[in-house]
Amino acid sequence: MLRNPIRTLIAQRKPLCFPRSCRHVSTSASTKTKVLTTETMHPLVRQVEYAVRGALPIRAEALSKQLLSDKSLGFDRVVFCNIGNPQQLNQKPITFFRQVASLCENPELLKPENRQTLLKLYPDDAIARAELLLKHIGSVGAYSHSKGIHHIRENVAKFIEERDGYPADPENIFLTQGASAGVHTVVQILTQNYKSGFLIPIPQYPLYSATLSLVDATQVPYYLNESTNWGLDVKDLKKAVDGARDNGVDMRALVIINPGNPTGQCLTEQNMREIIEFCHNERLVLLADEVYQTNIYKPQTRPFHSFKQVLCSMGGDYKDQELFSFHSISKGMVGECGRRGGYLECVNIDEKVMDQLYKIASVSLCPNVQGQILVDLMTNPPTSGDSSYPQYREEIDSIYQSLKRRSSKLADCFNSLEGMTCNDAEGAMYLFPKLTLSEKAIEAAKANAMAPDTFYCMSMLEATGVCVIPGSGFGQQPNTFHFRSTFLPEEHLFDSFCGGLRKFHGEFMAKYKD
Amino acid sequence: MLRNPIRTLIAQRKPLCFPRSCRHVSTSASTKTKVLTTETMHPLVRQVEYAVRGALPIRAEALSKQLLSDKSLGFDRVVFCNIGNPQQLNQKPITFFRQVASLCENPELLKPENRQTLLKLYPDDAIARAELLLKHIGSVGAYSHSKGIHHIRENVAKFIEERDGYPADPENIFLTQGASAGVHTVVQILTQNYKSGFLIPIPQYPLYSATLSLVDATQVPYYLNESTNWGLDVKDLKKAVDGARDNGVDMRALVIINPGNPTGQCLTEQNMREIIEFCHNERLVLLADEVYQTNIYKPQTRPFHSFKQVLCSMGGDYKDQELFSFHSISKGMVGECGRRGGYLECVNIDEKVMDQLYKIASVSLCPNVQGQILVDLMTNPPTSGDSSYPQYREEIDSIYQSLKRRSSKLADCFNSLEGMTCNDAEGAMYLFPKLTLSEKAIEAAKANAMAPDTFYCMSMLEATGVCVIPGSGFGQQPNTFHFRSTFLPEEHLFDSFCGGLRKFHGEFMAKYKD
Repeated sequence: MLRNPIRTLIAQRKPLCFPRSCRHVSTSASTKTKVLTTETMHPLVRQVEYAVRGALPIRAEALSKQLLSDKSLGFDRVVFCNIGNPQQLNQKPITFFRQVASLCENPELLKPENRQTLLKLYPDDAIARAELLLKHIGSVGAYSHSKGIHHIRENVAKFIEERDGYPADPENIFLTQGASAGVHTVVQILTQNYKSGFLIPIPQYPLYSATLSLVDATQVPYYLNESTNWGLDVKDLKKAVDGARDNGVDMRALVIINPGNPTGQCLTEQNMREIIEFCHNERLVLLADEVYQTNIYKPQTRPFHSFKQVLCSMGGDYKDQELFSFHSISKGMVGECGRRGGYLECVNIDEKVMDQLYKIASVSLCPNVQGQILVDLMTNPPTSGDSSYPQYREEIDSIYQSLKRRSSKLADCFNSLEGMTCNDAEGAMYLFPKLTLSEKAIEAAKANAMAPDTFYCMSMLEATGVCVIPGSGFGQQPNTFHFRSTFLPEEHLFDSFCGGLRKFHGEFMAKYKD
Repeated sequence: MLRNPIRTLIAQRKPLCFPRSCRHVSTSASTKTKVLTTETMHPLVRQVEYAVRGALPIRAEALSKQLLSDKSLGFDRVVFCNIGNPQQLNQKPITFFRQVASLCENPELLKPENRQTLLKLYPDDAIARAELLLKHIGSVGAYSHSKGIHHIRENVAKFIEERDGYPADPENIFLTQGASAGVHTVVQILTQNYKSGFLIPIPQYPLYSATLSLVDATQVPYYLNESTNWGLDVKDLKKAVDGARDNGVDMRALVIINPGNPTGQCLTEQNMREIIEFCHNERLVLLADEVYQTNIYKPQTRPFHSFKQVLCSMGGDYKDQELFSFHSISKGMVGECGRRGGYLECVNIDEKVMDQLYKIASVSLCPNVQGQILVDLMTNPPTSGDSSYPQYREEIDSIYQSLKRRSSKLADCFNSLEGMTCNDAEGAMYLFPKLTLSEKAIEAAKANAMAPDTFYCMSMLEATGVCVIPGSGFGQQPNTFHFRSTFLPEEHLFDSFCGGLRKFHGEFMAKYKD
């Protein structure tokens, strides 16, 4: 569970003035301990938590290995629902994207003498796109500009302009190694010291708490309202900001994940205007994590609006409102997590800060070029009339429709279970059902030195091979229990997947009946 | 030039106890300034310097753009010798590597119905390797294990075992997004607070100074001796450590770049033993940047030894000596910079620290998979008998021989110039000649508000289009002037490249003759 940041802030004040080194007794050559231990290492590293890859997934990996030789586990494979990693669960990549990527890897194929053979394996528009990209890139093996290849940033700017109807400048776009890398850079530069405060949603994607821990900024939580489908009330933001300021926190930024992770809600335009107005009044930089912008399952009632678009629509009074928006190739129907690609758009950011961001990007030289190529393809896909368009359209639509069906199916399954309620996903890739656990289950968890939700999830993993993440990894209202599950298992396995969960749940509830 | 770390340490003591926020006047909604400015941002970001992508390359980029429309510059292209980026200067990638990478991108090609066509474009061993890799990876679009794909870590371990003759454990290997990312993680975890001290060579690759600035550790410089071909004397290390300790620095680690960057020296085994003994006596973790391990130009007299090998050869007394070793796909004859791949081997590192390293790696999910694939190929290339071996051998040898020739040619060129002396490169990709500048040149630099070496390099860039980096970006003895240049321009252009430098230098020296 998240620390109370304000309490943490106060508790930290002294150690920060006299760093923890005071506790480190200088070791001499005669002692036999290591120089680098968990006692002597960077103290902020210790406090980082990242449940999405924590105890549950580590146990899941061990079970996965065990299954290679041991068939007695009661399930024949581990199903990794702990992380939005579609291709791990056999989601097929978009054919056109991979064709272009493979041609960029092997430019020998593009030589005239290979053209005839090549056309048996590749459509003409994939060849043309690879040629265009290589003209701008040179070689995928060369470091690019530290902000990313200019041609690709131009395409990203065009994509944003078309999406929003407002101008975008390639110079304000940084290509990144996934959204996580962009978030890390922005959170770091926004943190002046341990008093710098960031509003983060609870529940939240633990990238935020982990990154804030690592840079020693203060987490200021605001709660999403489960009873209004994880709605966001600006009054709660205001209360959180005022409370933090009363405790000496220098409020810097508001983090919004829209569509929500792990909660799947999609904000209305009206709500977004209120949020922007709030940031403007309170002088907060807005960090908009919009990586699920195409995972929208109720497009009629809850379409996606970008914060950039809503901000621009609010006119001149808000022209100074600072906004960072993050996007990724890992989500949507693209699902190219392993490539580590994404972008960051900086809106109304001070010019000198832009120079500093560029300098920091330079130290890690450049985002990987194959990730950049996928950003190009995601933001600039085949269009009507291109040879690859029909297949592209069909693939995107079929993944989308299937995700939508699976999201409902899993929500229905959860809602059919005793003591479990689950909001529908308006967007993203996850459900975050609420569990009511018996006293007996809570006691059993305590006896196993686990949080109750962790105990439930661990029991599920041991019984079914399904790996989900306890709500405590994301934060939740005190004394409530949740877990996050993706709805990414393959559709043809989905009924047996739901069946397995149902069976486990029934047995668990029976075993721990009060 | 580097700060005097000890002076810096003392100067920083107060601001660190009362963080710089004290200087930040809290802004209210009525002020019109931005929330995020260079005054309010993370103070450590401000102090980061990274010359390899600093003022010179920024000007070089501008000139490069200008050349598209303006032919009056006196040169027809900008030659980027500021960074070891071989493929930017048209070094051809290794064919087999790219073939495998492109097949992994597009597994459709591997379907039986395409086999006949495919064999017209790909050798059988590239197809077999891609199939093997995909069997272990699944999809290059899926997040992998946060340490990297296990199969590839096994191959890296075998590579290390064959190189060194001592065992290596895949569990001690982290695949990384280039060596820079590995260095960042290790430096971060080793930094307990601002008193944590790292010995870094002067001259050094500015990744180290930048990373240490960013984590607020203390840089403790030791000088390499230009007159003994950038030799390293353990007495100088000892002096630096003692001086730092006298000033309250908590010495943590020694950074060695071998072969040297920017200096190109290659350490003897005897010297490495002394260094390890020194680390052991002084209780310092050894950070060995060994990314240039195959760029060895005097293999008879100065072969490469890894620190791991020398450490293992020293026996049980040193069995606790902690070592991190970094390698990369960006250098050597591979030169795949744009992919961002590398690995980190942890030797004798505390088990609990290993868990913490894994946790931190998990927060950024995984290194990009295409970079991982290249690590597999680099450490496990075609061998005698494989269809691709003859071509692979020929490509590697031809790049190697050409680099060796170019390194001598450029050193000869520099040594033929008035007021310039240059050590030969025993390894790596750079020369670091010493310049004697006239009083008049130094005055002119001052009048242009530049350091003398920056002024020389900027003049070179404006006159020839050749971009090199002033010695001040790497550190140098006070009142000496150097610059770093790669020897990567294409061989068929090399005579005209040297000719251009010679002409510029003559004119510069004549213009500023005292």
